[in-house]
This record gives sequence, structure tokens and C-alpha cells, in this order.
Amino acid sequence: MRYGIAVFPSKKLQDIANSYRKRYDTKYSMVPPHLTLKDPFDMKESELDDFVKEVRHVAERSEPFKLEVLRYSSFYPVTNTLYMKIAETEELRDLQQKLNEGALEREREHPFVPHITIGQEMNYDELSDVFGRLKLESIQHEEMVDRFSLLYQLENGTWTVHETFLLGGRS
Amino acid sequence: MRYGIAVFPSKKLQDIANSYRKRYDTKYSMVPPHLTLKDPFDMKESELDDFVKEVRHVAERSEPFKLEVLRYSSFYPVTNTLYMKIAETEELRDLQQKLNEGALEREREHPFVPHITIGQEMNYDELSDVFGRLKLESIQHEEMVDRFSLLYQLENGTWTVHETFLLGGRS
Repeated sequence: MRYGIAVFPSKKLQDIANSYRKRYDTKYSMVPPHLTLKDPFDMKESELDDFVKEVRHVAERSEPFKLEVLRYSSFYPVTNTLYMKIAETEELRDLQQKLNEGALEREREHPFVPHITIGQEMNYDELSDVFGRLKLESIQHEEMVDRFSLLYQLENGTWTVHETFLLGGRS
Repeated sequence: MRYGIAVFPSKKLQDIANSYRKRYDTKYSMVPPHLTLKDPFDMKESELDDFVKEVRHVAERSEPFKLEVLRYSSFYPVTNTLYMKIAETEELRDLQQKLNEGALEREREHPFVPHITIGQEMNYDELSDVFGRLKLESIQHEEMVDRFSLLYQLENGTWTVHETFLLGGRS
């Protein structure tokens, strides 16, 4: 099975992200707008229980964090992706590190750049046009994040939530 | 905000359901295959915390249950819907009742018929054709369910998981 860990921000921010994703993100219908904390990785289902226990332990030892959108940005020329750049607070970096070290270490696709994707696999002209406009727009948004989700991928490429974890063990 | 409560069955069963939903379910891309425990309802975000506490309490007092698919069935002529009929075990009925009474009582669209939708808003000819074939097929599947999810709906109609709840307070 293929798993991943992500934060789903508030409905308000997801709605804003989707207003772009609908047109520019080839994975629009695969998963709601999210901030990836752990890149997709393969794991046997038999390892899931132990993995989840570790993740719970990380969640309990971590704190809610402020998610602040800084600006629109792009990974071009590495990939033709547009995203909302998220401030890398100490709490966020700390959480991401804990989810990717020790018993939770897995293959990684990218270095950690906190972001919410709003467009991907765009052709150059469109990317350049849309990004040119978005660079002129200011986006001011911040919110507190108190949870994250472990997801798994179905055969059709979509993702289902296996479990949510509350930061700081709050309930 | 619009909320709902559902069980996402195993990846295996979701994949089977999606093989039909892809062609026959107009809400295929809105939410993964699921068994609804509480029909969609409107609630102010300010009421969410108290609501979640009640739901947690219900989850702790409930037990994991066996999800057994009995056969393919249809809600025709009420709606042109095809579904997998799920056995109504005592544990499942008990859980569904607790999620729909007392502080958790809300408007309800339908009486409880445990099912996983695989087609909806089908035209009569297609429904009749597909159902005719499915009635001849036997589906033998059972699995244990140990969790359910509270979801909320985005502006584009898709659903995001707010929180998962483990039955029997297991962790």
C-alpha cells in the first residue's frame, strides 16, 4: 500500500486553493488541498499498526502550529507546479522532522518546502501566465493547525484518510 | 458548514466499489466509497467542538463491528441508486442509533439502510441493465471495522475528513 501524511487546512483555505486547482491541478480530484508532511511511500499493511503507534507518539509530543500563507510561488523549472508558500515555523519544521526520522524514516522525494499545491503539470505558457498574475496578488491568511492525517492511496489514484492525529494529544 | 459521518471500508472493498462508481456514480469524485452512519446535516462551526466531544464519547462506548456485504441491491423506484447491501449487525445498528439521538440528533434524509453506493442518478435503462447483471453475481466479503470519520463538505461538493474516531476507544 502507498501511504502519505498531510495537513488539511481550514475549509476557507481549501476553497481558495480549489478555485485554482480546478483549472490548473491535474490531481484536483485525487485528494483535497493539503500541506504534505511526509511524501508518499510504500509500506506493507502488516507494518501499519507499529507505524501508527509511532505517529501517535509524535503527535502527542508535538504542538499545534500557525499555518501562514506567505505568497504564491512556483517550483519551475524543476516541475511546472504552482503553490502557496507556507511559513516554516519552528513547530512545523519540528513536526515534519519527527515524522521523517527514526522508525518513521522512509524514502523521500523532495526536501521539505512547506506548501499547498494549486497547480501542477501545467504547460509552460499557462504556468508563466498564471504565475505572472498571482505574483501581483497578495494573499494574507493564517490559521492554527491542530491535527494531521495519515492517508492511503486507492487503485484509481485517489487518497482515503486512515486516521487523524491531534497535536499535543489534545482531545 | 455541512457535515456527515461515514465508514470508509478496506482499500480492497473501496477498489471494488470504485470499479462500478467510476462509470455509474455521479458523485464518484466527491468522496471515497463509504457506508453512511449519519446523513449530511448543517451545523455552525461554533458548535463543532461540543459535537465532536459527543461523537468521541459514542465511539468509546461502541464496539468494532463486522461489515458483511450481502448482495447488490437498488433503491429503485425511490431513487435510481445501486448499492452493496450491508448486514445490519447489532453493533452497527447500535452505533448508528447513538450517532443520531440525544445531543447528536439532526434532520435525517432517510431511514437507516446500511449500504455502500456504487451507482446513482442512473437513467432507467442503464440501472435496469447493470442491476440485472449484478443480481446474478455473488459478492462474498466481510471485514472488521474499527473506526469511522466525521467529514465536512467544501464549496465544490467534495468532502474532507475532519477527524477519525476509533471504536471502543482503542489506540
